[in-house]
Amino acid sequence: MSQSQTDQSANRVLIFDTTLRDGEQSPGASMTLEEKLQVAELLDEMGVDVIEAGFPIASNGDFESVQEVARVVKNAVVCGLARAGEKDIDRAGEALRDAKQGRIHTFISTSPVHMKHKLQMEPEDVLDAVISSVTRARNWTDNVEWSPEDATRTEHDYLCACVEAAIKAGATTINIPDTVGYSVPEEYGALIAMLKERVPNIDKAVISTHCHNDLGLAVANSLAGVANGARQIECTINGIGERAGNAALEEIVMALKVRGDAMPFDTGIDSEMIARASKLVSSVTAFPVQYNKAIVGQNAFAHESGIHQDGMLKNTQTYEIMTPESVGISKSSLVMGKHSGRHAFRKKLEELGYDLGQNAVEDAFRRFKDLADKKKHVFDDDIVALVDDEMAAGEGVLKVVALKIVCGTEGPQEATLTLDISGEEKTVVATGDGPVDATFNAIGELFPHEAHLQLYQVHAVTEGTDAQAEVSVRLEEDGKTVTGRGAETDTLVASARAYVSALNKLIVKRRKSAPEALQAS
Amino acid sequence: MSQSQTDQSANRVLIFDTTLRDGEQSPGASMTLEEKLQVAELLDEMGVDVIEAGFPIASNGDFESVQEVARVVKNAVVCGLARAGEKDIDRAGEALRDAKQGRIHTFISTSPVHMKHKLQMEPEDVLDAVISSVTRARNWTDNVEWSPEDATRTEHDYLCACVEAAIKAGATTINIPDTVGYSVPEEYGALIAMLKERVPNIDKAVISTHCHNDLGLAVANSLAGVANGARQIECTINGIGERAGNAALEEIVMALKVRGDAMPFDTGIDSEMIARASKLVSSVTAFPVQYNKAIVGQNAFAHESGIHQDGMLKNTQTYEIMTPESVGISKSSLVMGKHSGRHAFRKKLEELGYDLGQNAVEDAFRRFKDLADKKKHVFDDDIVALVDDEMAAGEGVLKVVALKIVCGTEGPQEATLTLDISGEEKTVVATGDGPVDATFNAIGELFPHEAHLQLYQVHAVTEGTDAQAEVSVRLEEDGKTVTGRGAETDTLVASARAYVSALNKLIVKRRKSAPEALQAS
Repeated sequence: MSQSQTDQSANRVLIFDTTLRDGEQSPGASMTLEEKLQVAELLDEMGVDVIEAGFPIASNGDFESVQEVARVVKNAVVCGLARAGEKDIDRAGEALRDAKQGRIHTFISTSPVHMKHKLQMEPEDVLDAVISSVTRARNWTDNVEWSPEDATRTEHDYLCACVEAAIKAGATTINIPDTVGYSVPEEYGALIAMLKERVPNIDKAVISTHCHNDLGLAVANSLAGVANGARQIECTINGIGERAGNAALEEIVMALKVRGDAMPFDTGIDSEMIARASKLVSSVTAFPVQYNKAIVGQNAFAHESGIHQDGMLKNTQTYEIMTPESVGISKSSLVMGKHSGRHAFRKKLEELGYDLGQNAVEDAFRRFKDLADKKKHVFDDDIVALVDDEMAAGEGVLKVVALKIVCGTEGPQEATLTLDISGEEKTVVATGDGPVDATFNAIGELFPHEAHLQLYQVHAVTEGTDAQAEVSVRLEEDGKTVTGRGAETDTLVASARAYVSALNKLIVKRRKSAPEALQAS
Repeated sequence: MSQSQTDQSANRVLIFDTTLRDGEQSPGASMTLEEKLQVAELLDEMGVDVIEAGFPIASNGDFESVQEVARVVKNAVVCGLARAGEKDIDRAGEALRDAKQGRIHTFISTSPVHMKHKLQMEPEDVLDAVISSVTRARNWTDNVEWSPEDATRTEHDYLCACVEAAIKAGATTINIPDTVGYSVPEEYGALIAMLKERVPNIDKAVISTHCHNDLGLAVANSLAGVANGARQIECTINGIGERAGNAALEEIVMALKVRGDAMPFDTGIDSEMIARASKLVSSVTAFPVQYNKAIVGQNAFAHESGIHQDGMLKNTQTYEIMTPESVGISKSSLVMGKHSGRHAFRKKLEELGYDLGQNAVEDAFRRFKDLADKKKHVFDDDIVALVDDEMAAGEGVLKVVALKIVCGTEGPQEATLTLDISGEEKTVVATGDGPVDATFNAIGELFPHEAHLQLYQVHAVTEGTDAQAEVSVRLEEDGKTVTGRGAETDTLVASARAYVSALNKLIVKRRKSAPEALQAS
């Protein structure tokens, strides 16, 4: 019996995070195994009830991710997605074999338009598939979730019949996806209420929401679902996911927390870890967070950030409904510098929520001292960037040894680059349209490849002209995308490191077979 | 009599855009007069009913903006914000003197916590101020909007009394701000319904919503308001605004359009202009739009963008609730190149929605040819960046003449820069931590200034290693912030141009006095 099934008081809402599955399906958001483990461990630590770790049948990489996440997660239920077929379900079951608490989440489309055009199946055959898929999943685990894809456009009588059959076959969670993000809150709430009223065995399962944000209503729809009887919300950090994404975990959690008077429901989330989770996911996916993003945008608490404006009216608690601290935004002004020692650094890491091994602390401390030599003030965000970068870098075939750039308004733009390729140093001089192009051309000459640059992004991690620049590079090759990052005070060196880091990931990916990738709800 | 008051069928919802007022209050989002005029003209063209152009008492710059917007806008009502005081209202009235249709929007706080701590006034004195402020505004125009700030935390009997008094004094629009973004949809809807039911003269005014997004519910709250009788929605492009921002115009408009079956209301917005408005506002504020932002994020229609993934299931209309074309995302594959002539270029500009004078077309064409020489394919987005950059650059005291950079892993990082300062060329060699720092140091040596770098941001406008980079630089001096942009294939040249463009704007701002800046709802 999983914690999610035992842990419930009447008003406890389970948080089901699908950052690693639906979130990772965002074009360009793919994460490496190592990055997925980092995210999973953080989600587990912050109190997420269920972590959907991937879609095991989709590729060997996805299978391996679910397997590894299942092994490292301590408290949360780990979930794998599967279509209704036997192979899908068995693959998910295998991937979850080592989980302390594993859940198989199986789905099939039930709307007329999906059944006809996507599945090309008759409703009665779909109903048979519901029963056989849930039954097969129950052979692997007693924790089975079933979803009628495109539920919000499904005919009600048929939906009730499918839900009833799924529960009878052993489904313990029934998820109601608004797959195309089409619902409005009243309607979605009424749909959940309808199921509560009409499905005779509905009390034997937890009802779950899964709302997409195409019309900007995912959070409101999820909350309307809960108000009408749902007790699990599927969501993602920063609201990433297919198209306009999913309901944002941070908005759901804080809305329930801040407005407990209007919505008397609890989650098990430690909200003070929200800011770190947001930064980590933004960093590993290279998806920037909008400044005015609710809860986690850099302006969300701007009335607290000491910004000065002429004659600005005094901002007291009259404008504040939650504190920045409640979501883990630190107001700490303890600025580190070149005179800070190993002890203070370790303490700072702890304050920032990192629990690193001795070697990792040493590596991070060395990079911190290098940075402190180059930069007057080292802010918390600098340290977060540095540690996250360290953790993401890993081991690679390629290393940047030296780079020299000559560029400007008069051509040619020239890059002299030395790379270490599997232990051997090679140097080349290349030109290009601009210094970044020249640098990337130099990499291409030293290590020829077919990957296509999908995204090149630079942002300053902290304030000041001597800020550390964090560069993200996304490469695509044969449908596989990878993202590399580099953080340096020199943007061009950071660019070279980011590109090389992406190439290293691509080399790892090439080694894995990836027969197919799929998409769901 | 304004259009907004005559144009209404029972189900017509007025769109009140406050991008230039509440949006511009976002820390760091300040726009120059020229940028505000660009935005206002686009809003007017797309069918916004009311454009809130600024807060005239806040500064001479704000006064001038409202005045100039009032002069150029052809169809929309132009609105200026004012607190309850006589000076505020008269200043707003003066700024709107040349408007075809002007509206004064006056407000005062009505919640216990705001009256006590912010206003330090008794409720009866606030009520007197409501009456006197609306009466004074009516001396300037018959189009007066009144807002009880922090309405959602105001005691109901008192709120009804204030609303009734405001309407009696002549207010034609009553706006109900959820100032702190605290409401949930049911509650906000019920508040509007309560006013409809209890305020005897409520039929003489249009009820308006103004919802902040602190809990991610601004759009849902606004729609709940409309369902319960509101007929004006206050919103901003990309949802920018104080803290987590306002309801996003694009989400409101598309939700009403796509779900006309559930919400039978019309707006006057030409939704095909949404993508351009989003890009323009993102560009002038240097606020990036999140990839998974509903409607306008780059992934919002990713199922349409031809992204290839192994074995991805076929995406038919089964996953589509609106087309990219309906929000103005062009699928045009007509790629321009160095052989494209003036005629094709002019036609392309028209397709992209630009209506430029002869000289502006010539300037843009010259830059296009330069770009086509450097870059194989010139995409639509390249051209949009180039034209927007051209329009934003304007005239300046400083110009970048030449730049040469030497940098890399081995120091020193060196920039040799020649600037034209009021017609005189000066050159300097500077070093720094990285090439960007060296470049900015060189600018500082040639043109000493106290401005503080708040933001440095680079993004590739289009795909490919030879992509045009667009750099944004935000500078702050004595509480005034400005944003400069530069687009070039060389990131560092673009950085220099962006910094210099920001400095040029700052020089213009310094000349204007700015006695105070204020904050509201």
